[in-house]
Amino acid sequence: MKDRPKVGIVIGSASDKGEVEKGTAILKRFGIPFELRIISAHRTPELAAEYAKGAASRGISVIIAGAGYAAHLAGAMAANTILPVIGVPLAASSLGGLDSLLSTVQMPKGIPVATVTIGGVGMENAALLAAEILALNNESIRKELIKYREEMKKAIKDANEGDDD
Amino acid sequence: MKDRPKVGIVIGSASDKGEVEKGTAILKRFGIPFELRIISAHRTPELAAEYAKGAASRGISVIIAGAGYAAHLAGAMAANTILPVIGVPLAASSLGGLDSLLSTVQMPKGIPVATVTIGGVGMENAALLAAEILALNNESIRKELIKYREEMKKAIKDANEGDDD
Amino acid sequence: MKDRPKVGIVIGSASDKGEVEKGTAILKRFGIPFELRIISAHRTPELAAEYAKGAASRGISVIIAGAGYAAHLAGAMAANTILPVIGVPLAASSLGGLDSLLSTVQMPKGIPVATVTIGGVGMENAALLAAEILALNNESIRKELIKYREEMKKAIKDANEGDDD
Amino acid sequence: MKDRPKVGIVIGSASDKGEVEKGTAILKRFGIPFELRIISAHRTPELAAEYAKGAASRGISVIIAGAGYAAHLAGAMAANTILPVIGVPLAASSLGGLDSLLSTVQMPKGIPVATVTIGGVGMENAALLAAEILALNNESIRKELIKYREEMKKAIKDANEGDDD
Amino acid sequence: MKDRPKVGIVIGSASDKGEVEKGTAILKRFGIPFELRIISAHRTPELAAEYAKGAASRGISVIIAGAGYAAHLAGAMAANTILPVIGVPLAASSLGGLDSLLSTVQMPKGIPVATVTIGGVGMENAALLAAEILALNNESIRKELIKYREEMKKAIKDANEGDDD
Amino acid sequence: MKDRPKVGIVIGSASDKGEVEKGTAILKRFGIPFELRIISAHRTPELAAEYAKGAASRGISVIIAGAGYAAHLAGAMAANTILPVIGVPLAASSLGGLDSLLSTVQMPKGIPVATVTIGGVGMENAALLAAEILALNNESIRKELIKYREEMKKAIKDANEGDDD
Amino acid sequence: MKDRPKVGIVIGSASDKGEVEKGTAILKRFGIPFELRIISAHRTPELAAEYAKGAASRGISVIIAGAGYAAHLAGAMAANTILPVIGVPLAASSLGGLDSLLSTVQMPKGIPVATVTIGGVGMENAALLAAEILALNNESIRKELIKYREEMKKAIKDANEGDDD
Amino acid sequence: MKDRPKVGIVIGSASDKGEVEKGTAILKRFGIPFELRIISAHRTPELAAEYAKGAASRGISVIIAGAGYAAHLAGAMAANTILPVIGVPLAASSLGGLDSLLSTVQMPKGIPVATVTIGGVGMENAALLAAEILALNNESIRKELIKYREEMKKAIKDANEGDDD
Repeated sequence: MKDRPKVGIVIGSASDKGEVEKGTAILKRFGIPFELRIISAHRTPELAAEYAKGAASRGISVIIAGAGYAAHLAGAMAANTILPVIGVPLAASSLGGLDSLLSTVQMPKGIPVATVTIGGVGMENAALLAAEILALNNESIRKELIKYREEMKKAIKDANEGDDD
Repeated sequence: MKDRPKVGIVIGSASDKGEVEKGTAILKRFGIPFELRIISAHRTPELAAEYAKGAASRGISVIIAGAGYAAHLAGAMAANTILPVIGVPLAASSLGGLDSLLSTVQMPKGIPVATVTIGGVGMENAALLAAEILALNNESIRKELIKYREEMKKAIKDANEGDDD
Repeated sequence: MKDRPKVGIVIGSASDKGEVEKGTAILKRFGIPFELRIISAHRTPELAAEYAKGAASRGISVIIAGAGYAAHLAGAMAANTILPVIGVPLAASSLGGLDSLLSTVQMPKGIPVATVTIGGVGMENAALLAAEILALNNESIRKELIKYREEMKKAIKDANEGDDD
Repeated sequence: MKDRPKVGIVIGSASDKGEVEKGTAILKRFGIPFELRIISAHRTPELAAEYAKGAASRGISVIIAGAGYAAHLAGAMAANTILPVIGVPLAASSLGGLDSLLSTVQMPKGIPVATVTIGGVGMENAALLAAEILALNNESIRKELIKYREEMKKAIKDANEGDDD
Repeated sequence: MKDRPKVGIVIGSASDKGEVEKGTAILKRFGIPFELRIISAHRTPELAAEYAKGAASRGISVIIAGAGYAAHLAGAMAANTILPVIGVPLAASSLGGLDSLLSTVQMPKGIPVATVTIGGVGMENAALLAAEILALNNESIRKELIKYREEMKKAIKDANEGDDD
Repeated sequence: MKDRPKVGIVIGSASDKGEVEKGTAILKRFGIPFELRIISAHRTPELAAEYAKGAASRGISVIIAGAGYAAHLAGAMAANTILPVIGVPLAASSLGGLDSLLSTVQMPKGIPVATVTIGGVGMENAALLAAEILALNNESIRKELIKYREEMKKAIKDANEGDDD
Repeated sequence: MKDRPKVGIVIGSASDKGEVEKGTAILKRFGIPFELRIISAHRTPELAAEYAKGAASRGISVIIAGAGYAAHLAGAMAANTILPVIGVPLAASSLGGLDSLLSTVQMPKGIPVATVTIGGVGMENAALLAAEILALNNESIRKELIKYREEMKKAIKDANEGDDD
Repeated sequence: MKDRPKVGIVIGSASDKGEVEKGTAILKRFGIPFELRIISAHRTPELAAEYAKGAASRGISVIIAGAGYAAHLAGAMAANTILPVIGVPLAASSLGGLDSLLSTVQMPKGIPVATVTIGGVGMENAALLAAEILALNNESIRKELIKYREEMKKAIKDANEGDDD
């Protein structure tokens, strides 16, 4: 039996799936159950509102929303839930993600979005941020996070050992 | 008896009212009935959806939406109606309106927003654009628009006549 | 016999035709007759003025103007007609369309341009915006717009059904 | 007896205190105990590392870091803790906060910072985001958040009722 | 009897006159006759075309065009004359002149605009550039330019002599 | 016997030659003799000063300077001559030419640079601008310019005739 | 008897003196003799070249150059000396220093400029960087730098002690 | 026996090694011993602090730090040493290095970073700047720098001699 998802990932378009995998790989490794939905703040506004409104009662604790262009998806989630919403600006247009970054992070007062790095790096960081939030009440995720940090440190140490300039 | 409004103006915050007056002055001059509502895409998402959904049946033909920061208001309107939506990015944050401009204009495919100039000039231009759209089927507005253009021309001619460099 | 065009599309250069097709596909689907002209605000200023001035009397209701670099084409149209003019900034230079966006949207007061997304997405959104404007007085287009929105919703629903994460 | 702080706010300079108050007012209202420290990632790097490393064991659950210019404070916190770190870019330099925004949000992979709006609005949103994170395991904060949202809705409704355009 | 103007200065709005004076002071000093007209590329497009088309035959050798926002004035001049056109982007909007700079300088191929610094400094530099162009066939202006450069050098030398750090 | 050059083209690096050819093709067509030198404002500052200082006496009337990055070449020319200097910002770095544009156009007061479009389009426009300046006293170039404009118009007319949408 | 200056500060205009004092206060405190000259890369190019060429032989070890707009002063220094040159972009134009930053930092390969923060903060940091360079061979400056860092740390510690939130 | 390194190069990721080689080639040519370490300000903060703190006592005189995204590496070095730190912003993200440039150069007051050009050109310029700093007390490096400058001049002279336009 599959666990109930704790993290809900929503992306604006099926074409964003490549980027998303960098985040889902992290969640899988941390053993955090998640679901992935394609939802557009603009093409499916009711679905967006409904998803955000129903998330908490279905057991979701954190929502990750990734979108490009005038990226309103994270804001639309945040407007409809008091769960923490993590926004990932995607670099889909010719502006390199400056449009999606400003559309995601510059939320007016009252409704925050926790914005991370533009693009695939952001998807990975969003997953880690979700893990950090969940770790506040989950010892197993907390330990995994510490281990993950140690591995990153070791990878850098190893990279240095290969060197001899 | 007041006419039923043809243009619905929505702004994200009561503090944007100063800017709005530059637009409503135009609508009044053109004899276009309008209504003004304060609606936040983020703080009042249901109200936003409801307003946009009900606008056409209440006789509204064009929606003008002005907001600052990550300005999703025009997009939220457009997502919920097939009426033409005019977006006015306001320069409310420290970025001079670059954030609201990109959040308003860079709509992903399928849901357009007709974006005009940042700020109070944009409010005025939004009112004129609304008039142009309505004029397609309203001879009186069409004539007012022509007259307005003539007046602008005359004002420039007069300004030149005062000169003698 | 061909219908008289209702939408006039003007582009600054023949090399922009690839982008334009994303818009004309929409107009064809909606049964909106259109014409496509290559007009440069700078290389053919008389043609630009003449086109805009004559558009209304030839039955055009909406003009769509797409151009790159210091994109003055939409502004040159708007200066010479009171028809609604939709501007599509194209990402032709090394600045990713920031130049054409600001040249198109930041119109000074008095002469609005309804600016949409940069690039091919903008061409598609311009066609939809033109349809929305025409739909105010055309029941058939109005129904097509509603159907188009339903199809977009369905496409997203279908994309989700394929998933099982 | 004062409650142990749950939120640690760090700012780069005493001159940022004005902005901070917009956030602390929210935390006070929500009954969330917090502490405020002036820490510079650059002038006091050991203090920064030490603060972040010791935060969890002292009962802190969320760190909010606000800084201007090349704002490394949130990143320095995040590098030294697995607690969620919220970054608030401040508009202290002549670039309107574009520098602090990019320095805060564009974290490389592995170490996320939850970035919010530039400036005082960001401080307020940071406090609300911290509340949302804490609310995952605190029913009282969860209720306050719902109430806060309701009040924001009511304020907008009231603003509309005063109107009669 | 007044000399026939050699330089035609056009500005988009009477409110730009303060900036213009920095340029006309230079032209007066150099004994270059000029005229100043308020012309809007958008509000008075015929006047703009007509002015540019008639300039050469009235003895004008160089046109200086200053405008803010989506500054099309210099481009509209250049499209209608083969006289050299100098564009001065003015910082009239909330974007600090980035909009008018890109609208002026990024001309598509075939129709150049000689763009100078944003704002009042640009008006002064435009006047000097006009003088440099005229000096190619005017020995008196050429000598004035050399003298002007010498004076700038002397002013700096004098400023240094006042110092003793 | 070769004519003495009237236009001096200087570029910062041999790798910029591809872009330059778009300009030299224009000059050749117009029968304007030119010379091309590789000069770096930074690596060969004396050569830069010497070139600019000697240009007028060697019969040069206009200098075209193209460079990327912090493009000081046009400014270095202008500082050392009162000939008109045309600056072409090249998009050599990762910033798409925003760096070279601002380095070229934002000259402080007293020393103007006539800046044109970024990149190869700019090289073409620089050559046309040089032709416009020379045409003030050269009837043959003046006629060529008029002919060139006519050809551009005809090319657009022809492109339209091929169409039948 | 005054010490021979070790640091040469050059600024583009006497109006930049206010900013400079933030740097000279540091140099005075560290007992580093300096001189201040007003030199414009554009208005006084020979003086600029001469100053840079003669600096080393007059005992100068580090040059600090501050300028606004298309800030070429630091680059002009660096082109004429192999002494380390520190560039301080000043926010003199309407672009908030983005122009002077890119003009200073984006030097093409071969001629580096050590660029620091925009504005008065940059002047202070330039002085500290000069001190760091000189400290490599000056024990007294090295000790002052360590002391200065300690004082900055203490100031932050003291600021925290005043608090009790 | 290998010489003790005088320059310490740190980069944020092994993937940046390609860029680094442009700098190490310069250092090798100048006979400046160096070491290369992969250190992340975020993934290995202790290592970063430790490296910077220990550098001086191990004989390092200058640190070069290259990183992309929110590039804090140079700042983290500078915070922990009074050695001069040269920052090289790398163009690793979709923003073309604007993020890493602002994160590196806009250091708050008290802790300078000597920032050079974005990317591989910056790595080369960083190596030259390090050489300039070391040359203040090393006659051999000083001579090499002069020779290097002469070679750059000769390369440009040679490139011109190949030409005959």
